[in-house]
Amino acid sequence: MTELTRRTVLAGAAVASAATALTPLAPAPAKAAAPLLGTQAPGWYRYKVGSYEITCVTDGRNTFKLPDSFVGNAGKDQVNAALAAAYMEKDTMTIPYTPIVINTGSKLVAIDCGTGEANFERSKGVGGQYHTNLKAAGIDRNAVDVVIISHFHGDHINGLITPDKKPSFPNAEIMVPAAEWKYFMDDGELSRQTTDRMKGVFAGARTVFDALNRKVTPYEPGKELAPGITPVATNGHTPGHNSHIVASGNSKVYVQADVTNHPALFVRNPGWHAFFDQDAKMAEETRRKVYDMLVAEKMLVQGFHYPFPGMAYIEKAGNGYREIPVMWNPTL
Amino acid sequence: MTELTRRTVLAGAAVASAATALTPLAPAPAKAAAPLLGTQAPGWYRYKVGSYEITCVTDGRNTFKLPDSFVGNAGKDQVNAALAAAYMEKDTMTIPYTPIVINTGSKLVAIDCGTGEANFERSKGVGGQYHTNLKAAGIDRNAVDVVIISHFHGDHINGLITPDKKPSFPNAEIMVPAAEWKYFMDDGELSRQTTDRMKGVFAGARTVFDALNRKVTPYEPGKELAPGITPVATNGHTPGHNSHIVASGNSKVYVQADVTNHPALFVRNPGWHAFFDQDAKMAEETRRKVYDMLVAEKMLVQGFHYPFPGMAYIEKAGNGYREIPVMWNPTL
Repeated sequence: MTELTRRTVLAGAAVASAATALTPLAPAPAKAAAPLLGTQAPGWYRYKVGSYEITCVTDGRNTFKLPDSFVGNAGKDQVNAALAAAYMEKDTMTIPYTPIVINTGSKLVAIDCGTGEANFERSKGVGGQYHTNLKAAGIDRNAVDVVIISHFHGDHINGLITPDKKPSFPNAEIMVPAAEWKYFMDDGELSRQTTDRMKGVFAGARTVFDALNRKVTPYEPGKELAPGITPVATNGHTPGHNSHIVASGNSKVYVQADVTNHPALFVRNPGWHAFFDQDAKMAEETRRKVYDMLVAEKMLVQGFHYPFPGMAYIEKAGNGYREIPVMWNPTL
Repeated sequence: MTELTRRTVLAGAAVASAATALTPLAPAPAKAAAPLLGTQAPGWYRYKVGSYEITCVTDGRNTFKLPDSFVGNAGKDQVNAALAAAYMEKDTMTIPYTPIVINTGSKLVAIDCGTGEANFERSKGVGGQYHTNLKAAGIDRNAVDVVIISHFHGDHINGLITPDKKPSFPNAEIMVPAAEWKYFMDDGELSRQTTDRMKGVFAGARTVFDALNRKVTPYEPGKELAPGITPVATNGHTPGHNSHIVASGNSKVYVQADVTNHPALFVRNPGWHAFFDQDAKMAEETRRKVYDMLVAEKMLVQGFHYPFPGMAYIEKAGNGYREIPVMWNPTL
């Protein structure tokens, strides 16, 4: 076979192995270019807290044009400056979602569950990845014993049901903050809502929980929900918002849910009032209290809206705080 | 079936699906605990630079007791303080390895290739992961057209050969810095080495390249090695150390190799002289020059010893610099 002939033959197809046999160690002959793959790594990451395994499972993210009112008490220029400082795109907000699953050794416990599988198609795969990534992480949704919900925004609860409105976790007890349940299931509260957004939050919560026949276990802060997993009231973002401390042995992690949204904006500027915070003043008080505690206790935080995989330590910086991401561990 | 009987039956085995059929929506009956998985996500991550796909492929990491002499011009207390500031363990150094592979659309180009598969068993899977993760990322080592080597330390070149000393990339042209080749292949230079460590670096390089019959293409800085991939001399760490600029469209990334080792120590403290830097003074000059450029140009850096996946922007901070990790993108 002449060189010319071989080049001609090889040019049209991926025949690297044939090339190998012909020319070991030689510079590569002309061959088909390896195709661009266009795929991302499965979005999960695992770490240990004491003897517990925590699996971070990304649901993907949401990117949208920065609304003028995204931060109620800061101008768009200030927000853009914070985005620029984080090397994020101007006039654009990207919010990642990372629920977690905890295996205590005796119980498999999910905390929050993403925007729901129906969002996968709607967002063209950018969001709604939770259940796919959960499976990729080797976790069977049928084996989940408990799902603990932090609050009733759609990115935290929609993954409770499948696109055909069946339970996503058919064997799990669904635990919800009692205060959140009381507020969002109260028809009087619903009747007093004046904005489309808030009416939507009520409707969204009811769609999900009605599909579950409202079969949930309301919980109070301070009482252990599963071995080593204790809720803490962190109200403001919603009326019944809870964070969760997961403790095993001498280790613990503070699973903050939405005490802050994206750290580039709201950890650096804890006084900023996010569009999503229902009682912005209370949310700010909660945020400062939690973050001062995280600094004082040198406690690991797991942030639902932090960049995946979402674990960091916190230090004081400027007028607020800065997160120090935990180094990726290539083995468990 | 009585509740007691069912509990007894279910207690011993993972029969979540049976439980599902029996009790949809009910609180979970007693069932076998889901096993701890003990596995980590495959260690790869993909991003785009212009039309190019870059895949970061972790080789794992190496954790060792901090030697007294790890930083030549800083005391162990200072190093421990820097570790503490990064929430890393005292008296312990952990160094991650992240080579990359670039698909330009016409060429599949690897830059460096980890500690070698033989290290997987030696390190009990903590290191030597590169070839496994490369495969997990969907990249066939036989399809790699070019391997560009930054310098001749074992964590960058050992992956060029298999445990039985065959070429790992049988169809690839192996490109090495001409200055590095001249230095480490020179028997006179070898004869002048006085330390076991340096003798070991020479021996290691010769083991690898002898296994390849010394069939390599030496390259000079400044000349494009593949479309959009240009080496830059960044000497000091070794006599012929090169970094590489990868450019496509309006985007570029500075693939620094070992301009710094772990950023928690050497980006924050660019004046610190790492044990590994052969000419520590020249390495420091190079480091400051490169990092001032990265700040001025707001250029993305890909760090071989940065925490996986290793991409960051750089800002000035304190007496040195600080890296701003790029947010994980759950889709490509």
